[in-house]
Amino acid sequence: MSLSTQPYKGTRDFYPEDQRLLNYIMWCWTEVVESFGYEQYNAPMLEPIELYSAKTSEEIVNEQTYAFEDRGGRKVTIRPEMTPSVSRMVAARRQELSYPLRWYSIPNVWRYERPQRGRLREHWQLNVDMFGVAGIEAELEMIQIADAIMQRIGAKRTDYEIRINSRKLLDKRIKASGVKSDVASVIRIIDRYDKTPRDDIVKMLATVVDEPEKLLKSLEQDGPSAEVKQLQDRLEALGITVVTTETLARGFDYYTDIVFEVFDTDPENNRAMFGGGRYDGLVGAFGAEPVPTIGFGMGDVTLANFLQAHKLVPALSCETDLYAVLIGDVYDAAQAPITALRQADITVAVDSTGRKLDKQIKAADKKGIKHVLFVGEEELASGTYRIKNLQTGKEEALTIPEIIKQLG
Amino acid sequence: MSLSTQPYKGTRDFYPEDQRLLNYIMWCWTEVVESFGYEQYNAPMLEPIELYSAKTSEEIVNEQTYAFEDRGGRKVTIRPEMTPSVSRMVAARRQELSYPLRWYSIPNVWRYERPQRGRLREHWQLNVDMFGVAGIEAELEMIQIADAIMQRIGAKRTDYEIRINSRKLLDKRIKASGVKSDVASVIRIIDRYDKTPRDDIVKMLATVVDEPEKLLKSLEQDGPSAEVKQLQDRLEALGITVVTTETLARGFDYYTDIVFEVFDTDPENNRAMFGGGRYDGLVGAFGAEPVPTIGFGMGDVTLANFLQAHKLVPALSCETDLYAVLIGDVYDAAQAPITALRQADITVAVDSTGRKLDKQIKAADKKGIKHVLFVGEEELASGTYRIKNLQTGKEEALTIPEIIKQLG
Repeated sequence: MSLSTQPYKGTRDFYPEDQRLLNYIMWCWTEVVESFGYEQYNAPMLEPIELYSAKTSEEIVNEQTYAFEDRGGRKVTIRPEMTPSVSRMVAARRQELSYPLRWYSIPNVWRYERPQRGRLREHWQLNVDMFGVAGIEAELEMIQIADAIMQRIGAKRTDYEIRINSRKLLDKRIKASGVKSDVASVIRIIDRYDKTPRDDIVKMLATVVDEPEKLLKSLEQDGPSAEVKQLQDRLEALGITVVTTETLARGFDYYTDIVFEVFDTDPENNRAMFGGGRYDGLVGAFGAEPVPTIGFGMGDVTLANFLQAHKLVPALSCETDLYAVLIGDVYDAAQAPITALRQADITVAVDSTGRKLDKQIKAADKKGIKHVLFVGEEELASGTYRIKNLQTGKEEALTIPEIIKQLG
Repeated sequence: MSLSTQPYKGTRDFYPEDQRLLNYIMWCWTEVVESFGYEQYNAPMLEPIELYSAKTSEEIVNEQTYAFEDRGGRKVTIRPEMTPSVSRMVAARRQELSYPLRWYSIPNVWRYERPQRGRLREHWQLNVDMFGVAGIEAELEMIQIADAIMQRIGAKRTDYEIRINSRKLLDKRIKASGVKSDVASVIRIIDRYDKTPRDDIVKMLATVVDEPEKLLKSLEQDGPSAEVKQLQDRLEALGITVVTTETLARGFDYYTDIVFEVFDTDPENNRAMFGGGRYDGLVGAFGAEPVPTIGFGMGDVTLANFLQAHKLVPALSCETDLYAVLIGDVYDAAQAPITALRQADITVAVDSTGRKLDKQIKAADKKGIKHVLFVGEEELASGTYRIKNLQTGKEEALTIPEIIKQLG
């Protein structure tokens, strides 16, 4: 029996054309966050299971982690998110690090979910975190970065909406409606407000608070806190319009104050794309002195869906500049000019099959390589090579320095 | 009880200074392989367990994989190597792809091993593979690339040695010495030839072949095959000296012909760093038409050890160009000039703590950021900003366009 050629359920193979789009997304992320002074870090993909039991949402830990025992009996988890790992790393060097600390990472994160549009079992997720700034300037910067990324990928301001809220305000209103068990379980219900009929939310809330209708009305009608309003005004002055949304909760248990979320306004794809918020307590969970912290995460799958929905996927072509077509048995002799081209930063693939010329040219065309370079004994003797642009059909005879000048 | 700040055993946290070295290594890899026309691909980190049972070495599958059952009862493995995944991907699109196919990837791969120098439980591994070339030009190109990478990282030709052999020749000699069970188990013993006393190798061989001493002598004395000799000669003509080594085996079961390995010649670090070879049979294992294939893998841990041993680690500095020191309450007003700098590709971190100037400057210095930019009400009104080089102490008063000109 032969082996299956399919990737594991809910995951993706990245063929070169898929990888190019992922690289484009990662490049946009990196350019923007580095322009704000963020430095890259990474952590291992496996972490001890306890790392998530503390503060990640119950649903993720109990139902969605890839958790198992290693051959030495250690309980480990493939990271479902990066926030616990980065908090662990900062806690480990709490005293030595220089604040404000601006860090980013693009880990591959895994959750056991039912695969659906915008949600796979793995995705690449930009994580942007700032440690050491208690003031609202940290919130300003996070939302500036989120907005700058949307601008960098070519989105119009009407294509997305940034919503902000305060967990402190939520907490206060939840507590005023008579919490039966814990605030976290109320927040988990409010987190579903957007996707669930209001009546169902009321029914669910009735199991955890004394006055569900009063709570919901206060969220819907009583407006934002002074802090949220101030953040909105200061962002507006910087040219970034945000919407205060008192029902916005975010799923994770670790948020402590301002939270924000970026929504796609396209009616076909109307959903939260990414978000983040302040989580001042996490570094302290490792026994280190607490540090004010804020961050957000942004996945490649939802962003690629956004690019597709808004027709923002750029034309991305093969990175190879030249395809060397060999005429006769000249593989070894062709290496000198080809190496000279490579050393001048021209990328060159060689056809080393020995097949007929037309088949060699067809291969270059199929790969999307723009130019073919003909190399035979005559060319090697004269130092002049025919080069053909496969898109225009134009052919020229050029020396290696001339080719370097033209393509380099 | 607080959570541990340590990463999982045998793995690494990459703080920004560690990540910079890894990025440097990845950048060298990418530059070289793309110059040879290789395109990047990737595959999921989890694969069905059967993928490795077929052709990866027995030791890896039985003792070193991170294998477990997912929540749906599927048996999966965190990839211990990339070759089975890339073969699966090529098999899935065997007819549509255009050959020769040149693909590379830099996956994170995992093995459950006892952590030791040069061997951790995870590493980042460059994988370079070519599909569709049966001729020895494929071997030539693989070894050219391996050599070009060593050159690109600054190694002298005397710092490393490239060894080549033929699995076909090994097979022939093994069969001539009376195989008791299977050739693969003989190869696994020969693979340890370099690290094991000769007497022990003879004893081990006695359990699997009739004439262990005859076999070993033939490997030690009878020289290379004509094909290996030809490869050596053609590489020599291209300026790359390789050593024919008839005891060279490589661990994986899937190799079918030429294999090669790159050794560190430093007496302190004398070990195989990386290698590869031809594995023509793997795509066919997925029920697709077989395709001639060759490839190699190269890990970041052994390469970093090599860089350290040969003092080739470059000075890598913080990517942030400017640290904006704020004088007074000017955070919002400072955003316009700072955004202008960022849009001109100057990376700027802002001190948003509101602390004293000397503390802000000290933070920039500790982070290794070369320049500080002073922004206060006076500067904002005049449009002229003091900029200080923290390495030379030199201070200038410049407009934003002048700063862009100087640092851009």
